[in-house]
Amino acid sequence: MYEKTSPVPPEEFVRVEWVSLRDYVAEVLSSLNVPREHAEIVANVLVAADLMGIESHGVQRLRRYTVGIQVGSVNPRAEISIVKETASTALIDGGSGLGQVVAYKAMEIAIEKAKSIGVSAVGVKNSHHFGIAGYYALQATKMGMIGIVMTNSEALVSYTHTVGRNIGTNPIAVGFPTKEPPPVLFDAATSVVPIGKIELYAKEGKKIPLGWALSPEGKLLEDPREVLSRRGSLLPLGGFGEEFGGHKGAGLALIIDVLCGVLTGANYGMYVKHTTDKEKANVGHFMIAIDVDKILSLSSFLDRIEKYKEYIKGLRKISENTEVWIPGEKAWLTMETRKKIGVPIHKNILKEIREEGEKLGVEFKVKILKETA
Amino acid sequence: MYEKTSPVPPEEFVRVEWVSLRDYVAEVLSSLNVPREHAEIVANVLVAADLMGIESHGVQRLRRYTVGIQVGSVNPRAEISIVKETASTALIDGGSGLGQVVAYKAMEIAIEKAKSIGVSAVGVKNSHHFGIAGYYALQATKMGMIGIVMTNSEALVSYTHTVGRNIGTNPIAVGFPTKEPPPVLFDAATSVVPIGKIELYAKEGKKIPLGWALSPEGKLLEDPREVLSRRGSLLPLGGFGEEFGGHKGAGLALIIDVLCGVLTGANYGMYVKHTTDKEKANVGHFMIAIDVDKILSLSSFLDRIEKYKEYIKGLRKISENTEVWIPGEKAWLTMETRKKIGVPIHKNILKEIREEGEKLGVEFKVKILKETA
Repeated sequence: MYEKTSPVPPEEFVRVEWVSLRDYVAEVLSSLNVPREHAEIVANVLVAADLMGIESHGVQRLRRYTVGIQVGSVNPRAEISIVKETASTALIDGGSGLGQVVAYKAMEIAIEKAKSIGVSAVGVKNSHHFGIAGYYALQATKMGMIGIVMTNSEALVSYTHTVGRNIGTNPIAVGFPTKEPPPVLFDAATSVVPIGKIELYAKEGKKIPLGWALSPEGKLLEDPREVLSRRGSLLPLGGFGEEFGGHKGAGLALIIDVLCGVLTGANYGMYVKHTTDKEKANVGHFMIAIDVDKILSLSSFLDRIEKYKEYIKGLRKISENTEVWIPGEKAWLTMETRKKIGVPIHKNILKEIREEGEKLGVEFKVKILKETA
Repeated sequence: MYEKTSPVPPEEFVRVEWVSLRDYVAEVLSSLNVPREHAEIVANVLVAADLMGIESHGVQRLRRYTVGIQVGSVNPRAEISIVKETASTALIDGGSGLGQVVAYKAMEIAIEKAKSIGVSAVGVKNSHHFGIAGYYALQATKMGMIGIVMTNSEALVSYTHTVGRNIGTNPIAVGFPTKEPPPVLFDAATSVVPIGKIELYAKEGKKIPLGWALSPEGKLLEDPREVLSRRGSLLPLGGFGEEFGGHKGAGLALIIDVLCGVLTGANYGMYVKHTTDKEKANVGHFMIAIDVDKILSLSSFLDRIEKYKEYIKGLRKISENTEVWIPGEKAWLTMETRKKIGVPIHKNILKEIREEGEKLGVEFKVKILKETA
């Protein structure tokens, strides 16, 4: 039993059965005119985040999407169309649909092309926030493929030597198939931390380490409430300036913005809108699928990556009390645990998603397994 | 006139004319049985690094390659062969040839495939250290393509929560074509700093910031000489532990190791050898070329990326005395400058490469433009 994040304090959380949570989320979205199949995709992606210990991207975001539909920014029945394609590439117009649906479909297209030809690259415009990037990389790993998934996102980060929120946290996920679970899954924002972590520290009344966030004037902040109330910004991976490689993190955010925004015709930088803004967000994604078997026989690759995992797990630890983790391993173990003992949901969040359903006439059928985490 | 790095102190350097430097380096390699065309590729890559202000990867590394040939680890007349291929992918065996030649040829293959089909992925095994990754990304940008280039490298970094040198600085370069120079070129190691920076601080007798390097026991070091003499290790981008995202930098190094090493059949982690070791280095590379025009019309992309560059350059600066840089811009300006006023070469390095030539009976024809930098 392992959980990447501990619900603290436990009495503020309940444990819910994940299938019932997923089904409920799908019902809520269906009631907003989202086709059943699409509602299930979104519900799967949101609940996967909760299962994997990435609660910031889980069902607590449900309202973001329902409001997006209600204000008209998200089209619940969007047509996803291929604007241009070759045997190995496609440019997709997401029609301002739910980002999860658009991304899921885009990866299906990428996988199909890679299966027939070896490698594929798919760009997406007119999409929305798609939740956790890793979910779509895992679509590829299930097919014996390497999946690379990027998205741009609303600007929350200050590009190196600048102030203000001017570039997204632009995450990248890369997944590799493995013989034994867990698959190797790297999934990270290109900022030092996600904004959710600042929110968590604010809630817990803790200071943040100097080097996570900047004031609008360019001062390092240690009060997380100031970051949130004064539109402070996050620092790129590598931190402030160039001394510890902040320009590398900012550079990664920039290349992801070019691939997802510039190359596809989507928005970029501070022009990327939030899901609940009235204007279309026009988020862009970029995905690559590589059929392993076209490069090395899949069985050789699977043998080799197991050896590589052993190599990493066997490295000399810095102290006895620590653990060496393969990317994706913590999330996988957390998922296994939570499928058994339930997903911890904060009572306020549970109330919020219950109310969302009530407003829409959807019966609350989430099974509570335990009244505390 | 701009230079990314200043030759300090100037009196220890000379300025040399870059074409004569390149030709001389090619002559030296030719005299070691490297075919003329291959010798020119290596010379171009090395001198490009000096022109771009990445001296750590410039002609000061010439001896590394000549020794590699002399000890038999590098095969000067290697056959580069395609082990497996599809319309969009290839696995290449570099035959333990010079990494620059292998990488250059691999990118040529990637470009050809991408031109006919849209996107390509090429893995390489049995190669050697290839110098600056960005050089090969620029091969793609010259053809209106996006070039993505990765390599693994000798282990110098400690994976998060471990000690010792156990994973490479594994760099990644991504280049985009632009209407106006410079092309956008991101090129960065996934460690906080390259080992060359530690060497520079040691030479200058300066302390390094806490957070760059680790002792073999896992203590943060501030004496660069200790890093070098006691086989200390570099920290991944994001630094020590997980607080500032060190696991993200380590995760990036790991996915590059999997793509370059595990997927291709090359070595990985601490099994990657140095160019001058007796054993074959078996370095692996991984490259992707994307033909922009297959996704968005090249002319639209070129218009859009110029606007994007303007967007970034126009961001609010943190102070009046600073500059906001596009990835690759500093290197490009440095190259323009050095093509005019000469490449600064440390007098000891000049002596070293002169001696290399003398041993091999190659006349020293490097034109010295100025006896100081």
